[in-house]
Amino acid sequence: MKNITIYDIAKEAEVSVSTVSRVLNNTAPVKASTKDTIMKVIEKYKFQPNALARSLIKKETGTIAMIVPDMTNPFFPEVFWGSENEGREKGYTFFLCNSAGEYSRESEYLSILLERRVEGLIFIGGRINLADCPPELIREVTEAAEAIPVVLVNGNLSKGSLHRVYTDEAAGAALAAQHLIDLGHKEIAFVGGLDYMTTTMQKVKAVKKKLKEHGLSLRSDWVHYGEFSITAGRELMNRLLNGEQRPTAVICVNDFTAIGAMKAAIERGLKIPEDLSIVGFDDSPLSTAVIPELTTVTQNAYELGRLAVERIYQIIHGKPAKRSTVLQPELVIRQSTGRAPQKNGD
Amino acid sequence: MKNITIYDIAKEAEVSVSTVSRVLNNTAPVKASTKDTIMKVIEKYKFQPNALARSLIKKETGTIAMIVPDMTNPFFPEVFWGSENEGREKGYTFFLCNSAGEYSRESEYLSILLERRVEGLIFIGGRINLADCPPELIREVTEAAEAIPVVLVNGNLSKGSLHRVYTDEAAGAALAAQHLIDLGHKEIAFVGGLDYMTTTMQKVKAVKKKLKEHGLSLRSDWVHYGEFSITAGRELMNRLLNGEQRPTAVICVNDFTAIGAMKAAIERGLKIPEDLSIVGFDDSPLSTAVIPELTTVTQNAYELGRLAVERIYQIIHGKPAKRSTVLQPELVIRQSTGRAPQKNGD
Repeated sequence: MKNITIYDIAKEAEVSVSTVSRVLNNTAPVKASTKDTIMKVIEKYKFQPNALARSLIKKETGTIAMIVPDMTNPFFPEVFWGSENEGREKGYTFFLCNSAGEYSRESEYLSILLERRVEGLIFIGGRINLADCPPELIREVTEAAEAIPVVLVNGNLSKGSLHRVYTDEAAGAALAAQHLIDLGHKEIAFVGGLDYMTTTMQKVKAVKKKLKEHGLSLRSDWVHYGEFSITAGRELMNRLLNGEQRPTAVICVNDFTAIGAMKAAIERGLKIPEDLSIVGFDDSPLSTAVIPELTTVTQNAYELGRLAVERIYQIIHGKPAKRSTVLQPELVIRQSTGRAPQKNGD
Repeated sequence: MKNITIYDIAKEAEVSVSTVSRVLNNTAPVKASTKDTIMKVIEKYKFQPNALARSLIKKETGTIAMIVPDMTNPFFPEVFWGSENEGREKGYTFFLCNSAGEYSRESEYLSILLERRVEGLIFIGGRINLADCPPELIREVTEAAEAIPVVLVNGNLSKGSLHRVYTDEAAGAALAAQHLIDLGHKEIAFVGGLDYMTTTMQKVKAVKKKLKEHGLSLRSDWVHYGEFSITAGRELMNRLLNGEQRPTAVICVNDFTAIGAMKAAIERGLKIPEDLSIVGFDDSPLSTAVIPELTTVTQNAYELGRLAVERIYQIIHGKPAKRSTVLQPELVIRQSTGRAPQKNGD
């Protein structure tokens, strides 16, 4: 499995390495007969010009990396797909790095990716969603951003000094709350998400604000924080339903927890949406897989991924790149929300 | 954003490039005071020794690539996760390449990845699942395998000459059929999957064989081929239910089509499993997200990914690497299958 190098080609073609290089990279004219000889040797050995060698000269690696917290949540593969399609046309190949939400793993990947000289880095989830990120974790990212273009997706760090593309999650949560209020709901709960993550707290804050505009409030015993998984959604919903009073509608931090919440409610014999309306967040493929289909908020996952690569490309090529790009979410009304039930006392 | 190179370090430390290289790579002893000076300059500029330069010397890139057909199907992210965890400990970073099932895109990625000198390639889906793969598409993969270790996951090409790790899908389909027969089902259908893909035909064949062992047969009008998506599952199930007679149980090619099939059945007012039993394939996270939870066949996605990297590592390091590794699938009985309904005629 010996790798043929440019030196082997040059030796067999009886020319200098720089002549072979000129043919491979089309950097200067080479006599036709010489070129012919070289090409024959190249074909004979099926020689692949070494991208590493070329990139060392050009200082380009043609690689972009994405750090994600959890590829089993279908939101992230969709962001990746948007990035890959946009980058592929521009000649980029993508490293994918799962942090599993562990900050130490994020740090490890940041260091490895810089060493691999990736030309850009897309960062989603993990530390960039911390409401109060420790300075040393921030520093690692800002230092990376001094070396290469870094774009944060749906997060923030370092007071907005880094490039960001994000969906206005607060606006999305407000849309969900408004939808429920329009359906006559007054008793609305919030389920899922860790309370130290901005992706959770922005939504809770927006729901509170929207309710207040309508003279309503979010009862503290109707807010249940936890992980972002189906299992967590189920547990948190059970905790909510074990309470003395139950709400008529629940807004969940994402589709995963919404599906878990639906399962818990149905297992207790509740009908959705007749007894209880449920709203998710993300509009992942899961939302149409369940019965009833989930009313949710679309995050434009594909477009977020695409825009992140567009920004990296603009920065690399010295073009004007918007520091911050916000996408407006949309409410997707399906089957899991309906008119508030008429209650006879409680 | 100028990148500091080893040349800059050497210049400022007033030593030769090879001395800096010796310090960085620990390849030969360097006088303590000189080393000290060099390290100070390295720290001053936060110089990251260039992985590209090192890998050119060592002829190692520390990268492995995975080509997958569809990252929105949760089976594939789980395979990736198994590979990444296994490879990360060994110092590998992973390229992820979505082919979207297009052979031209697979070809493009094969060529790009060879040029990037990845140290190993994991190939899942697409052409390696074709029952009758065109020779030129086979050749691209066998040629790649001459340059670097290639491992096929759940597929085959070139009469088994390539390294493979796979789940015995036929055995899995036989388990599903046996389970339904044990529940008293005699009228069993098959839904989903393209008929020119081995992943489909192996299952159909195994179901037929198992039924035959029990004196039953698979009616040709109860086999509906198509894509592997939720949407396809729904359409194909509707087609099946539009027939004159309906079966009492359906085996689906994967979880996606099974979920689509469940939706179609429930929309028509059928109860699962009382009126109709449904079995999926893959045991993806989706299978517990739906109501009723899906009886399915586990493919050991994580372990497949892990083993693929183990093989690549063995091949790279000249250790004995099994050419072919087969995992035994397991049936996971959940809520979507039950006893065959008692029929009063039809």
